[in-house]
Amino acid sequence: MKNKIANALSDFFYEYETPRQVLVRNRRVGVVCRLIQLGVLVYIIGWVFIYEKGYQSTDTAVSSVFTKMKGQGYTNVSGNEKVWDVADYVFPPQGDSSFVVMTNYIVTEGQRMGRCPELKGKHNCSTDADCEEGSFKRQMTGVCANRTKTCEVLAWCPVEDDHNIPDPPLLMSAENYTLFIKNSVTFPLFDVTRSNLVEGINSSYIGKCLHDPEDAPLCPIFRLGDIVKLSGFNFETIARVGGAIGIVVDWTCNFDLHLKHCKPKYTFHGLYGNPAETDKAKASVGYNFRYARHYMENSVQKRTLYKVFGIRVDIIVQSLARKFDIIPTLTAIGSGVGIFGVATVVCDLVLLYLLPKREFYKHMKFKNTNTYAKDPDSEAGSIETELSKK
Amino acid sequence: MKNKIANALSDFFYEYETPRQVLVRNRRVGVVCRLIQLGVLVYIIGWVFIYEKGYQSTDTAVSSVFTKMKGQGYTNVSGNEKVWDVADYVFPPQGDSSFVVMTNYIVTEGQRMGRCPELKGKHNCSTDADCEEGSFKRQMTGVCANRTKTCEVLAWCPVEDDHNIPDPPLLMSAENYTLFIKNSVTFPLFDVTRSNLVEGINSSYIGKCLHDPEDAPLCPIFRLGDIVKLSGFNFETIARVGGAIGIVVDWTCNFDLHLKHCKPKYTFHGLYGNPAETDKAKASVGYNFRYARHYMENSVQKRTLYKVFGIRVDIIVQSLARKFDIIPTLTAIGSGVGIFGVATVVCDLVLLYLLPKREFYKHMKFKNTNTYAKDPDSEAGSIETELSKK
Amino acid sequence: MKNKIANALSDFFYEYETPRQVLVRNRRVGVVCRLIQLGVLVYIIGWVFIYEKGYQSTDTAVSSVFTKMKGQGYTNVSGNEKVWDVADYVFPPQGDSSFVVMTNYIVTEGQRMGRCPELKGKHNCSTDADCEEGSFKRQMTGVCANRTKTCEVLAWCPVEDDHNIPDPPLLMSAENYTLFIKNSVTFPLFDVTRSNLVEGINSSYIGKCLHDPEDAPLCPIFRLGDIVKLSGFNFETIARVGGAIGIVVDWTCNFDLHLKHCKPKYTFHGLYGNPAETDKAKASVGYNFRYARHYMENSVQKRTLYKVFGIRVDIIVQSLARKFDIIPTLTAIGSGVGIFGVATVVCDLVLLYLLPKREFYKHMKFKNTNTYAKDPDSEAGSIETELSKK
Repeated sequence: MKNKIANALSDFFYEYETPRQVLVRNRRVGVVCRLIQLGVLVYIIGWVFIYEKGYQSTDTAVSSVFTKMKGQGYTNVSGNEKVWDVADYVFPPQGDSSFVVMTNYIVTEGQRMGRCPELKGKHNCSTDADCEEGSFKRQMTGVCANRTKTCEVLAWCPVEDDHNIPDPPLLMSAENYTLFIKNSVTFPLFDVTRSNLVEGINSSYIGKCLHDPEDAPLCPIFRLGDIVKLSGFNFETIARVGGAIGIVVDWTCNFDLHLKHCKPKYTFHGLYGNPAETDKAKASVGYNFRYARHYMENSVQKRTLYKVFGIRVDIIVQSLARKFDIIPTLTAIGSGVGIFGVATVVCDLVLLYLLPKREFYKHMKFKNTNTYAKDPDSEAGSIETELSKK
Repeated sequence: MKNKIANALSDFFYEYETPRQVLVRNRRVGVVCRLIQLGVLVYIIGWVFIYEKGYQSTDTAVSSVFTKMKGQGYTNVSGNEKVWDVADYVFPPQGDSSFVVMTNYIVTEGQRMGRCPELKGKHNCSTDADCEEGSFKRQMTGVCANRTKTCEVLAWCPVEDDHNIPDPPLLMSAENYTLFIKNSVTFPLFDVTRSNLVEGINSSYIGKCLHDPEDAPLCPIFRLGDIVKLSGFNFETIARVGGAIGIVVDWTCNFDLHLKHCKPKYTFHGLYGNPAETDKAKASVGYNFRYARHYMENSVQKRTLYKVFGIRVDIIVQSLARKFDIIPTLTAIGSGVGIFGVATVVCDLVLLYLLPKREFYKHMKFKNTNTYAKDPDSEAGSIETELSKK
Repeated sequence: MKNKIANALSDFFYEYETPRQVLVRNRRVGVVCRLIQLGVLVYIIGWVFIYEKGYQSTDTAVSSVFTKMKGQGYTNVSGNEKVWDVADYVFPPQGDSSFVVMTNYIVTEGQRMGRCPELKGKHNCSTDADCEEGSFKRQMTGVCANRTKTCEVLAWCPVEDDHNIPDPPLLMSAENYTLFIKNSVTFPLFDVTRSNLVEGINSSYIGKCLHDPEDAPLCPIFRLGDIVKLSGFNFETIARVGGAIGIVVDWTCNFDLHLKHCKPKYTFHGLYGNPAETDKAKASVGYNFRYARHYMENSVQKRTLYKVFGIRVDIIVQSLARKFDIIPTLTAIGSGVGIFGVATVVCDLVLLYLLPKREFYKHMKFKNTNTYAKDPDSEAGSIETELSKK
């Protein structure tokens, strides 16, 4: 028994099967097949391996972004001079990856809770009966104010009048604000962490540089006016009605090279109200939100309401890292061999069905198990004979 | 030498190898093998290609979301009427993808820094000795207040009493607020940018539509009450203690079709305190946070503290785009051919080990290199003879 | 005609082709080839299937995070005692996944819009001519203040003096604050939703537990001091100048196992100013932002400006779920068979080009279509003869 297993094992290890093949010496088939096989080879090596880097596995990053605006705005509304610093014009203040820079505003000062008539043109009325009480959009009191001929409402009074957006925008000086972006990305699969303060971007360089797509592509300090221009907007337009801009930080890295080649690339594009998408833009232009500063005056709660028009900046981190990995490599090779098999099948079809000598090649390629009866002298027959002798 | 290379090249190009095969004419093996091969073919074409669209490469999007709430709330606390507008009830105000709509609150007005006794029931004491100074949870002063029999603390006084949550919630009117979502997605691999204001969703439609899963699935305006209902909550419950809701914007796109078929799909589900997950829900129900409005009164810094209960809405963008790509196509074909190879191996096992005529088939399939000695007349033998003649 | 098709079909179904093979009985080739084939088999089964779980498809999650800080800070600046609660030290207040805990600050109280001289050391001047009007960085008035010998500016006055950062940090008590993280993840491909309040993490456990990597790895309550320590920072340093910490919630799940094994893993690391990355850290240490509280005093708008130094915490959710899927399984098998084919090619090269008996094996393996002329008695010849008889 033991002997038998040993024999089987030695049979297994000392024997090797290799397919028998027909060597077809035919110019047409040869050239066609070699060309097909060459095509497959070129595709696998050239396209899958070199162009698409199929020998690498890929990973996307988890990232963290911190921003800091700098610069001072200045407004002069009918002689009332004011400066605006970061604490006044950035929302939220703590340096998130998505924030709004105020560029224009409509301010309604000293609002207090009370009853006052609506703006002219809204909820017009001639008698109290026109002012139905309790509609959900506005808290009507059921009174028609004589002076304005509009319904009286329970609201923060006086009511905000946002009909006229200041033009030119009040904070055109925002064009000169600068934005500093700190971004750190981690590729968990490859255990690599990179920051956008790459090699050479030290504190002295940051102190004096300004991002420029050509001259300073790695400088993480951006002028707001440049950002707006590079994303295809006109600064005065976007500053007046607001808009949203995406700053894409693109980390496309090949970790087969040295780490220092893994650098961020900054691109800018409009997110909504994009001037290029004319039709859709019309549907919803501008960006604004309301924000209130509450205070107490003579024990009465009051608020200053701001309708803020601004540039909303979204820092969008996009990442794709690649590194050599044995599994995609062998998968690519393995399926490449499979495609070679398809090439062989195609060539065989040509050989067996299209060539004039196809019958000859068929006989060369195939041995039929039930031809022995007809051709006792053929190879198959002789083997059968051997078997019958046993 | 040159000649030799030319010869080798012409040999290479004019010759073609194709495997020799045995045609086994056996009903059982034939049917079994054809069925296996058909199964593999159906799997590759039907499942991998048609069902799973294995001929496409996939990409996920980078996205940007902007939200805007509309509507007015109304409270009447013991005759004190108040309206609440967007600037008062949305946190943060600037229209982020994750925000909170206040639906209930506990307000503690006129707090100032000072010393005051704790609430009844917390830090009870009978003598000063019970109030150990300097515990980190509360800044004890070491005094036991006579009146309340609780320790005195250094704190914003008076201390907030959040024992009783207003029921019904103060801002039930929140049910009628509307939410407008603007969402733009970019698929970097396919260089496609889409907005949720797709074809047909223009400003006049937005002006009058309201999202409904059946009738207006593309309208980007949502009633808060509908959102709560569709995510399986009861509005009064969630409004009272707060809760978190995810609005999933699903972009599942096939870019082999026209771009206009790439439309968002909105779904709603509870994130925490989900009524379905009873056990886990109990662990941590509700959603609330504290928020203070600071002001100055008679040169004393004071604040109004709000404990805000609200509905936290997270807009979650989920995306998967597909487009025809030659590499996954050929990889699928290649590995399909590989699986065909497995089918052949299985059939060979049947043929060579299970059939009654297996010995015959073995002799048909295999040519043994060391049988020539025993059978000088066999094929192998005759070749050997040829070789020995050389 | 019908008959013909039936015949062709029965031919197709009752016939089966299997490649003819040479059984080479050669110790060297046998052992080499079997070892190569074994290697491929071990690679496919051991590496692709067992180690890399190639039979599974993967998915990443969409997630939602909610945080809540607890604890009270205490400052005593020149006898002026103050407590700080969550509403005072967390930015933003509503429990986002990215927030800042204030640990140190420079406060400038009672600022009002006006004209005042710059700080000493900035914009020094001797005459008014040194103060050029209208530079964008500061709104100069063109006056040189006599007292300080610096230019006068239009600004919030008095101007903030942030030269000296309080040391030790004012809110060292922040070390004892606790952070509660609620995190819910959804894997859309597998339709699974999990929360970090997994089985066993109920409200009574949450009430008393504190996260510890060894003893309580699933407790979602973290002490701020522990977080700082685990991410490699010194608390006093980070509290003084600020810093950013990432809390990575890692969901690596295998859904072939029971759902309860899918648990989060919390890790902590510094995001910027990482003490390990000495060089890059220098480029940009610390984390701070400015924030203002506006109020009205005697009808004059004033503000209290805070320069906030703090610990910015980013909750980063990282996820990778795996589940058995037929397609990656069959793709792996298919491309594995392809690699088997490569092994066969390598062995054939050894057999046909390196062995001493290579000519013999070549003749065994290949049948040449144009040898029949020379060897009329060979197998090929006899088939040709058959054909010529037709």
